This record gives sequence, structure tokens and C-alpha cells, in this order.
Amino acid sequence: MKELEDKILSEGEVYPGNILKVGSFLNHQLDVDFLMKMGKEISELFEAAGITKILTIEASGIAIAVPAGYFLHVPVIFAKKGQAKNLSGQTYSTKVKSFTHGNLYDVAVSKEYLKSTDTVLLIDDFLANGNALNGLIDLVNQAGASLAGAAIAIEKGFQGGGDALRNKGIRVESLAIVDNMDNNTVVFRS
Amino acid sequence: MKELEDKILSEGEVYPGNILKVGSFLNHQLDVDFLMKMGKEISELFEAAGITKILTIEASGIAIAVPAGYFLHVPVIFAKKGQAKNLSGQTYSTKVKSFTHGNLYDVAVSKEYLKSTDTVLLIDDFLANGNALNGLIDLVNQAGASLAGAAIAIEKGFQGGGDALRNKGIRVESLAIVDNMDNNTVVFRS
Repeated sequence: MKELEDKILSEGEVYPGNILKVGSFLNHQLDVDFLMKMGKEISELFEAAGITKILTIEASGIAIAVPAGYFLHVPVIFAKKGQAKNLSGQTYSTKVKSFTHGNLYDVAVSKEYLKSTDTVLLIDDFLANGNALNGLIDLVNQAGASLAGAAIAIEKGFQGGGDALRNKGIRVESLAIVDNMDNNTVVFRS
Repeated sequence: MKELEDKILSEGEVYPGNILKVGSFLNHQLDVDFLMKMGKEISELFEAAGITKILTIEASGIAIAVPAGYFLHVPVIFAKKGQAKNLSGQTYSTKVKSFTHGNLYDVAVSKEYLKSTDTVLLIDDFLANGNALNGLIDLVNQAGASLAGAAIAIEKGFQGGGDALRNKGIRVESLAIVDNMDNNTVVFRS
């Protein structure tokens, strides 16, 4: 998505440790009109996939998943981090390693909302090593639901998580793929 | 908002300790079409208030703030919980006590996005004792921004946080106010 690449180039900031900050529009301050455009793009990519539910993970993923759910006319579930005390009833849960923070955390979703009859689209703001996405895939598998694929705003291609999933036959659509950001220069996959 | 009251009556679950679960549409699974209606209602309530920015708190608040931002045509900022390692630069921060979990947590927002020239609308999914909202008000005050008021999906009126803020002259608009939920029966303020 050319417009996302342009926005990363004009507003993104590269920090040591392969950190790309896009807090001005994607994961702290939210440019809502732009999120709606990304949601529409995602809905067009997956409109023929028979999606019945979107699954994302708190918190930033919610901001893209809601617009995508609006255009696909399906509910969004956001998996909760931590012990999820306030999830009622039984849950599917898994462990995810955070790229940004380095720690291991639990991710859970209520069995009530993720069903074996669902066809699920995963959505997240970032894809790096694929840890969060693999956690969500685990939850989908535990529920016996069908996985339609994953839609990501920004994939850091050089960290390999996206291609590893594609090599397993999972459809991963990233609106922008950064293949290199050495020397503070962001290079996109063409 | 009659439609929200009806949805609470048909889908909400009351648990001991004054817990009202609305995970089927508001804070775990998200009914996106309904969130858009709530966002539109909020935008109509505050359309004359000169809002330049919406401030919410991760995670559930994001799901209502994004639709409201869409209809008000303003950016949303979500305050981050915890130490917010991945906020670049300087932050305003404050401490909030969680009603659900009982613990004290830090809430932070980057100084880059909350400015003294902003007129801010606060949005959250729940208002009980008002702890989260008081934390957000503290952040707005630290930034020297103007506070237009707060828009809440569900206020638990019997916990007093909303009325305490109204008594201080703060405009608090809740789409549904639960005044009593003893004996598993939800009673709304008329």
C-alpha cells in the first residue's frame, strides 16, 4: 500500500535494535481516517475468503481490526494479555514472547466467541519474528476454527516471521514490508 | 442510548462484586456495527465542543474511540499502561488504580501528541469509581490542554465516579448509566 509506505517514510522513526516507531499514526496516536483506509484495503484483500470473525491482540491491533471488521461486516475479538481475570468462563490460552519488551506473556480468548465454525482473519499492526501471530494461530487451532490468513500493517521482512508463515502455506498480507532499515534508511520490498 | 441499554439487558452478565460483563460486544468480542453507532452518538453529543483530539486508555477504550474519532474527524491517542518502554521521548504519566484487578498501574502519554493547544474529549468503555478518568484528566492537565469532557459507554452510577466528576463541573456523557444491579437485575438511570 503505497500510501502506508509514504507515511512510514515521512513519519516513522528508526531506533537502535531494529525498532521502527510509528506512534504518530499507528500505535500511540491513531490517524483514524488512515486506519479506515487500511481497514478497507484489508477487507478488499480478504473479501472472497468467507471471513466470519477477525482475531487481533490488545492493544494496537484493535485500532486496525475495528475498521477492517466494519468493512467486512464481521465481529472482532481481541485476545487479552496477562492472566485475563476478567474473562468469564473457559478460555483458550497460549504464551507469546514480546519482541519489544523481551518478556513472555499469556494470551487468552474466551471459548464463547471463537468457535470451530468460524473462518478467522488475524490482524495486527506489526509482524517481526511472528511470535504474536503464532500465538493467535495456536488459539485458532485450539478452537478448531479455520484460518483464512493474516493481515498486517507493517511487516519487518528482515526478521523472517512473515516468510516463515508463508512457507507453511499461510496467507500473510502485509500492507508494507520493510526489508532493511540499516543506517536509518527504510527499504521496502517491491 | 436506548439501543445500548437493550443490548446490556440482552447480552450483559452480572457477577458478584458489581462486575458487569459485556464481552460479547464491548470489551472482548467487539460488535463493530454497534461500536460505529456509539461513535456516531458521541460525535453528535460533542460536535459543537471544538474537539481537536480524543484521549482514551488501552485496550477496550480504543474500540469506541476509533469510531468516535472517525465521525469527529480528529486523531485518537491511547494512553499506555505500564512502563511504556516503547514510547519515544518524554511522557506525561500518572498512576491509576484498577477496579477490576485491584492493582496500581502507570499510565503514560507522549508529550509529542498531547499539546496545550488541544481541546480533548476523553473516551472509555466503563466508568465506575472514576479512577481511569481521573488519571486521564491528570494527563490533560499536565499538558495544559483544554478538557471538553468525557464520553463513556457504560457508567456504573452507583459507584459515584461519574457524579463526582459532574459535581466538579466536568461534562460527563454516558450512553447508559446503571444505577443498580442488585439481585442480577440491571436498573438504568432515567
